Amino acid sequence: MVYVTRREVFSASHRLTNQELSDDENIEIYDKCNNPYGHGHNYTLEVVVAGNINPKTGYVIDLKKLKKIIKSKVISKVDHHHFNFDVDFMKGIIPTTENIAIGIWKLLVNEITEGKLYSVKLFETENNYIEYKGE
Amino acid sequence: MVYVTRREVFSASHRLTNQELSDDENIEIYDKCNNPYGHGHNYTLEVVVAGNINPKTGYVIDLKKLKKIIKSKVISKVDHHHFNFDVDFMKGIIPTTENIAIGIWKLLVNEITEGKLYSVKLFETENNYIEYKGE
Amino acid sequence: MVYVTRREVFSASHRLTNQELSDDENIEIYDKCNNPYGHGHNYTLEVVVAGNINPKTGYVIDLKKLKKIIKSKVISKVDHHHFNFDVDFMKGIIPTTENIAIGIWKLLVNEITEGKLYSVKLFETENNYIEYKGE
Amino acid sequence: MVYVTRREVFSASHRLTNQELSDDENIEIYDKCNNPYGHGHNYTLEVVVAGNINPKTGYVIDLKKLKKIIKSKVISKVDHHHFNFDVDFMKGIIPTTENIAIGIWKLLVNEITEGKLYSVKLFETENNYIEYKGE
Amino acid sequence: MVYVTRREVFSASHRLTNQELSDDENIEIYDKCNNPYGHGHNYTLEVVVAGNINPKTGYVIDLKKLKKIIKSKVISKVDHHHFNFDVDFMKGIIPTTENIAIGIWKLLVNEITEGKLYSVKLFETENNYIEYKGE
Amino acid sequence: MVYVTRREVFSASHRLTNQELSDDENIEIYDKCNNPYGHGHNYTLEVVVAGNINPKTGYVIDLKKLKKIIKSKVISKVDHHHFNFDVDFMKGIIPTTENIAIGIWKLLVNEITEGKLYSVKLFETENNYIEYKGE
Repeated sequence: MVYVTRREVFSASHRLTNQELSDDENIEIYDKCNNPYGHGHNYTLEVVVAGNINPKTGYVIDLKKLKKIIKSKVISKVDHHHFNFDVDFMKGIIPTTENIAIGIWKLLVNEITEGKLYSVKLFETENNYIEYKGE
Repeated sequence: MVYVTRREVFSASHRLTNQELSDDENIEIYDKCNNPYGHGHNYTLEVVVAGNINPKTGYVIDLKKLKKIIKSKVISKVDHHHFNFDVDFMKGIIPTTENIAIGIWKLLVNEITEGKLYSVKLFETENNYIEYKGE
Repeated sequence: MVYVTRREVFSASHRLTNQELSDDENIEIYDKCNNPYGHGHNYTLEVVVAGNINPKTGYVIDLKKLKKIIKSKVISKVDHHHFNFDVDFMKGIIPTTENIAIGIWKLLVNEITEGKLYSVKLFETENNYIEYKGE
Repeated sequence: MVYVTRREVFSASHRLTNQELSDDENIEIYDKCNNPYGHGHNYTLEVVVAGNINPKTGYVIDLKKLKKIIKSKVISKVDHHHFNFDVDFMKGIIPTTENIAIGIWKLLVNEITEGKLYSVKLFETENNYIEYKGE
Repeated sequence: MVYVTRREVFSASHRLTNQELSDDENIEIYDKCNNPYGHGHNYTLEVVVAGNINPKTGYVIDLKKLKKIIKSKVISKVDHHHFNFDVDFMKGIIPTTENIAIGIWKLLVNEITEGKLYSVKLFETENNYIEYKGE
Repeated sequence: MVYVTRREVFSASHRLTNQELSDDENIEIYDKCNNPYGHGHNYTLEVVVAGNINPKTGYVIDLKKLKKIIKSKVISKVDHHHFNFDVDFMKGIIPTTENIAIGIWKLLVNEITEGKLYSVKLFETENNYIEYKGE
């Protein structure tokens, strides 16, 4: 069993707000993350696939293939987008890094057919990151 | 002469658009940076001050003081804000990293009274950055 | 189950020495880490909390809250301090990175009430780091 | 149980090719990684040892000792070498990062006598890395 | 005047050797960098362009355009290549980082038509880098 | 003219204090950097040499030679030392990063005989650094 990681970077905006709460409650919970015009990040995404090495190639999964899957299934939908307005898979979901990481897991889990998706790590800043393993 | 650098990080949104151009021209020039809902970055700011060492302190300028100036004059105005909507000093200016760096220079140049402001470096991503020296 | 990480940095001094051993033994074991006046590091601390997402907030634990806990319970006690002389929770303990990481775990484990403390990672340099998971 | 990590860097060359396949198949699988003259990387290696703290030293394993083991058993054999031509332990093995990581595990697993080898992480670039835990 | 930097990464091989010297002299000068099968690096390239801001776009030069120029004029020729064998612009030149940086300067200097090429920085490792400004 | 940089890292302690001032003045100026037992950093040192390329070697200065000079003239004197107590070249000097950078410049300026010392950059933390060019 070997773990293979591919790292990609994208830039997006979000505003943290729960539409079922009042403005005051949202400000109390999210503080400046609730600022009305939103703000953004350079998100760093690490996708980990676990599996056995294919003796023909020496790969678990060709990282060029993994890169293509991540680009077409995730990056194309989020890069230079706003999680509250034009990212389909986050519709109606509070765009915390936790929820985005789970959303990305769901986009990828059935696309990985050599090895299995093991973990999605999502860095919001150099100081804050989330890991989700489908548990 | 010694050069002293302080690094700070902030998260903000922007949308690149020139209001004097047509939608088609804006899309042609800015491509996905013109997406209507904007996107964001973790900007890294490096402020360089040049000066002589004060023999009493061994400092050109106390970095704690420089940090406070940057926080109150710059970071408080841009962190978790959107350059097109709620950042005063960028009103009416296309929020490219070039223009933001010059805006930050103007905010700081008269606030530095020990040594002189030498350079403002602004990283939009790990791959793209701008330096402005007031020339 | 989601894993949430907060990273903080602090600067401290230490001298590796076991007071029950002779000077010669200490020098043999610790070499230059036993230099009499001590030396220091910029320690990087990563605190990982594991838990379920609170549907009201979209958070496992608000990272602003986690940051405050780490600052008040850990950073305030170690930043710009010397582990051999003025850090209470290390009194009588050899200040290796291993022992500091365990000390930090003990300071935090009962303070985390949303989710559970999962791991403390402590980087002494870019080349050396320790992880402790309470096992 | 504490996890201790040492990071080392080395520079090496490789060419991805499976000698049992035709040239066309090799180009299809490995693309530019199959370029005839090979190419190279600054590989970053992280070796993780798990164990209990020795109360006499406060260490699981002295990181100076771990560094020496890694240098003599691994780095001396791969640094400034070419995995296809002058690295003994990779003879006849396709030099993917996956296979190199497993090769390094085998070189180290019996050399670590304080604590146990837990993981070998090998970064080929800042975007691609492999982890192997002997499973 | 504003300085705009674009960073790109490529992987390549080289062997340091001066064909006008004897084997012994080459080994004495280049040591392990003279190993017969060569070795490689993940080179990091930073290209700096200096110029005035175009008021229509807010750019000195569109970084997407600069990226395309670097990719087509430099990266396509060096990525996954071997500087001693299949990189045209280094034919007959000892492939030290110094000489590669100058070679890259020559490839780019006439391609930059908005602003002027100001500097080429080339990192061979995280510890060694070269800057050339055409002086 | 080419600029060649070598990066080295060392760990040391210091306490900021001006012995000609009162305790109260020292606390007011240096705050927690004046804590009585001192604190420490992983300092990152970048030494830049400027010169012409030697056509025989393709080097301005062999980086292995530059590394050796920095190790023997600087690192051996500061690594795992305390700037207030056991670093000769800082005797009687307030050990701010500014003053340490100038001290290192003086140690190196006459040792570099291929090319000329151009700059000493010293990072105290990832957020604070100093550059000195002998001006």
